[in-house]
Amino acid sequence: MPADGGTKGPRRVLSKGRMEAFSDGVFAIAITLLVLDVAVHPPGTPLEQVLHAWPAYVAYVVSFLTIGAAWLAHDALTDQLAQSDSIFLRLNLLLLLVVAFLPFPTRLVADALQHTDAERVAVTFYGLTLLAIRLLGAALAEYARREHLYSPPGDGEEPPGPQRKLLSVVIGYVLAIIIGLLLPAVAVAVYFAIAIYLVVPFRQVARLLFRRS
Amino acid sequence: MPADGGTKGPRRVLSKGRMEAFSDGVFAIAITLLVLDVAVHPPGTPLEQVLHAWPAYVAYVVSFLTIGAAWLAHDALTDQLAQSDSIFLRLNLLLLLVVAFLPFPTRLVADALQHTDAERVAVTFYGLTLLAIRLLGAALAEYARREHLYSPPGDGEEPPGPQRKLLSVVIGYVLAIIIGLLLPAVAVAVYFAIAIYLVVPFRQVARLLFRRS
Amino acid sequence: MPADGGTKGPRRVLSKGRMEAFSDGVFAIAITLLVLDVAVHPPGTPLEQVLHAWPAYVAYVVSFLTIGAAWLAHDALTDQLAQSDSIFLRLNLLLLLVVAFLPFPTRLVADALQHTDAERVAVTFYGLTLLAIRLLGAALAEYARREHLYSPPGDGEEPPGPQRKLLSVVIGYVLAIIIGLLLPAVAVAVYFAIAIYLVVPFRQVARLLFRRS
Amino acid sequence: MPADGGTKGPRRVLSKGRMEAFSDGVFAIAITLLVLDVAVHPPGTPLEQVLHAWPAYVAYVVSFLTIGAAWLAHDALTDQLAQSDSIFLRLNLLLLLVVAFLPFPTRLVADALQHTDAERVAVTFYGLTLLAIRLLGAALAEYARREHLYSPPGDGEEPPGPQRKLLSVVIGYVLAIIIGLLLPAVAVAVYFAIAIYLVVPFRQVARLLFRRS
Repeated sequence: MPADGGTKGPRRVLSKGRMEAFSDGVFAIAITLLVLDVAVHPPGTPLEQVLHAWPAYVAYVVSFLTIGAAWLAHDALTDQLAQSDSIFLRLNLLLLLVVAFLPFPTRLVADALQHTDAERVAVTFYGLTLLAIRLLGAALAEYARREHLYSPPGDGEEPPGPQRKLLSVVIGYVLAIIIGLLLPAVAVAVYFAIAIYLVVPFRQVARLLFRRS
Repeated sequence: MPADGGTKGPRRVLSKGRMEAFSDGVFAIAITLLVLDVAVHPPGTPLEQVLHAWPAYVAYVVSFLTIGAAWLAHDALTDQLAQSDSIFLRLNLLLLLVVAFLPFPTRLVADALQHTDAERVAVTFYGLTLLAIRLLGAALAEYARREHLYSPPGDGEEPPGPQRKLLSVVIGYVLAIIIGLLLPAVAVAVYFAIAIYLVVPFRQVARLLFRRS
Repeated sequence: MPADGGTKGPRRVLSKGRMEAFSDGVFAIAITLLVLDVAVHPPGTPLEQVLHAWPAYVAYVVSFLTIGAAWLAHDALTDQLAQSDSIFLRLNLLLLLVVAFLPFPTRLVADALQHTDAERVAVTFYGLTLLAIRLLGAALAEYARREHLYSPPGDGEEPPGPQRKLLSVVIGYVLAIIIGLLLPAVAVAVYFAIAIYLVVPFRQVARLLFRRS
Repeated sequence: MPADGGTKGPRRVLSKGRMEAFSDGVFAIAITLLVLDVAVHPPGTPLEQVLHAWPAYVAYVVSFLTIGAAWLAHDALTDQLAQSDSIFLRLNLLLLLVVAFLPFPTRLVADALQHTDAERVAVTFYGLTLLAIRLLGAALAEYARREHLYSPPGDGEEPPGPQRKLLSVVIGYVLAIIIGLLLPAVAVAVYFAIAIYLVVPFRQVARLLFRRS
C-alpha cells in the first residue's frame, strides 16, 4: 500500500468477501422471517380463515419482492466493486438495519388490512421503510462511485443497475405514501407494482420473447 | 464480452457465488424455522402431551425432507452451472419465495391434524405449495438448459438429477392433492413417501449394499 | 472421471463448498434460535422474574454448547474431506434435521424445570436428541472413512477429532438418560458437563498453561 | 507441518474460512432476530400505538448497532488472521454465545421502558451483556496476538481496530451500568452513544469532509 497522504493513502482497504457474506445472511434471514407473520385467525370455517388471510399473503409477497429487489441491487453493486472501505461498511450496515426492520411494518400492514381502522398509519410506516431501503441502497452505490471503489468496467458493459430505475422508483414511493394517507389499499397496490417493476428485467424478457417468435 | 446482438451478446453474465450463498441462506433458514411450530399443548400428562404432538413431528419431518430435497436439487443444478443471468436470478427468487413460505402451510397441517375439522383445507394448501416448489425448481433447470447456462458435461456424466424424477413426482403430488380432499391423512403419508423418494439416492444405496454382500 | 464399474466409477463426486455453507447456515440458525425460548414469566418482582428464569439460561447454555460442539466436530470432519458424495449429503441432511430440532426439546426442558411435573419426560426427550446428534455425527465420520472421502493425512497429523471422544460421550449420554428418569436435574447437569467436555480442548489448554509456568 | 514439540508443533492449524462463515451466520441471525421483539400494544389509536412503541425502536437500534460494531471488530480481527487454532475457535464460540443471547435482554429493555417498574433490572442485565460482548471480543483479539495468529502487518498498516477503543468503551459501559441502577433511561442513552462511537469511523469521516471543503 502506498504511504502517500493522498486520497487513498492511509485508508484501510478491505476485502469484500465477508461484507457480502454478512449482507447475504441478513437479506436471507429478513426475507425468510416474513413468513412468521403469516397466520390465520378465527372466526370462520377453515377455508374462510385461509382465504381471509389474503392481506398477510399480499404483504408477504410485496415485502419478499422488495427485499429480493434490494438484494439483486446489492448483488449487482458489489459484483462491480473492486474493494470496500470503512465508511462503505457502515453505510452498508445502515442499509441492513432498515432491511432487517421491514418485517415489523409488514406485520403492521398485514394486521391493519384485516382490521381496517389502522390502515393509514401502517401503510404510511411501511412506505417510509420501503423508501428508506431504496434511498440507502442508492447512497451506497453513489458513495462507491465517488470514492472509486468500482472495478473499471469492461468494454460495452452497462453502468450499475440500481441507479437506472432510481428516480422513477423514488417518485413512485413518494406518490404512494401521499396516496396512502387517503387510500391505503391503493398504496399497497402501488408498492406491489413497484416491487414487480424492480424485480422483472423487462429488456431481457422482451429479448427472450422476441427471439422466440 | 463480444458486442454482437446475438443470443448471449448484451446479456449481463453474472457469477453464481452470491446467488448460491443467498439461496443457501434462505434454504437453511426456512428449514430451521420449521421447529418454531413444533409445540406441545394441554390437556394431558406431560408424556401424553409430548406423544399427542405427533402431527407436528410428522409435519416437521416431511417439510424438512422436502426443503432438503429442493436444496439437493438446487445444489446439483447450480453445481453444473457455468454462469447465471438476470432472468435466472429472478426465477430463483420466485423459487425461494415459495420455499420460504412453506413453514406457514406446515404449521396449518400440524394444527389441523390435531383439530381434525380443518384437515382438508390445510393439507390441500400444503400439497399445492409442495407442488409449486417442485415445478419452479424444474422451471429453473429447464431455463438453464435452454439458455445454455450449464457447463459442458464431462465424459460419462449424467444429466442434472432433479429432472429425472420430475414427472413421477408431479403426478404423485397431483394425485395426493386430489386424495387429500377426501382423506387428508393419506395425502400427508404420500407427501412423506415422495420426500423420502426425492432424498434417498436408491442407486447409490443399492450399489453400496451390493458391494458389501 | 474414469468410466470403470469399480468403487468410485459412476459415483458423482461433489464439491463440498455448498454442503459446508448450507450446514454452517443450519448450525448458525439453530444455535441462534435458542434465545427465542428464553423468557421471563410473572409472578414476582422484576429481579425475581429474571433470577427465576435460570432454567432457561441453563438450557440455553447447554444446547448452545452442544450445537457448538457438533459444529466443531463437523468443521473438523469436513476440513479433512477431499470430496463428498450423494449418500454423504443425505446423511448430513439427517444430522441437520436433528440439530435443527434441538430448540424444541430445549424449550421443553426450560419449561419443565420451572414447572417440575414435566421434568422427567422433557429431560429424557432432550437426552435422546443429544444422543442422536452425537450418533449421526459419528455415522457421518464413519461413512467418510469407509468410502475414502478423506484427504490423505499429512505426516504427524492426528485422526479426526470427533471419534476420539465418541465412546465415552455415548456412554455418558446413555447413563444420563437413565439417571434422568429418576433425577432429571442431575441429568441436565451431566449434559452440561458433557458439553463442556466436548467443547474444551484440554490438551491444548494444558499445553498453554504448562508453557506459561 | 514440523513435528517438533515446540510452541506451534503439534497444534492443529485450522483454516479460518468456516469459522468466518459460521460467525457471519450467527451475527447476521442475531441482528435480524431483534425485529421479532418490536411490536405495538393497545391501548390507543393506531398512530399512538406506533408512537408509543418508541422504546422498542430505541432498543432495536442500540442492539443492532452494538452487534454491528461487534461484527465490524470481528471482521477486522479475522481479516488480519493468518490462521486459527482450537482455543481460538472455542473463544469465538463463547463470544457468539453472548452475541446470540443479546435479543433476550433487548426484549427485556423494550418491555421495561414501557412498564417502568422493571427498568433498573432490565437495563443492568442489558449493560452486563454488552460489556461481556466487548470483553470477549477483546479477549479473542488478545489471544490471537499472544499466540501469533496474525499475518505479519504490511508497511504503514495500523494495529487491529477493536483494541484502540477498548479501554474507553469498557469504562463507558461500567459507568453506564452504575448510572443505570439509579437512572435507567440515561444508561440506555449512554449505550446508544457508545454504539455510535463504536460504529462511526470518525477519522475517515473527518478526512472525507476535510477533502471536500
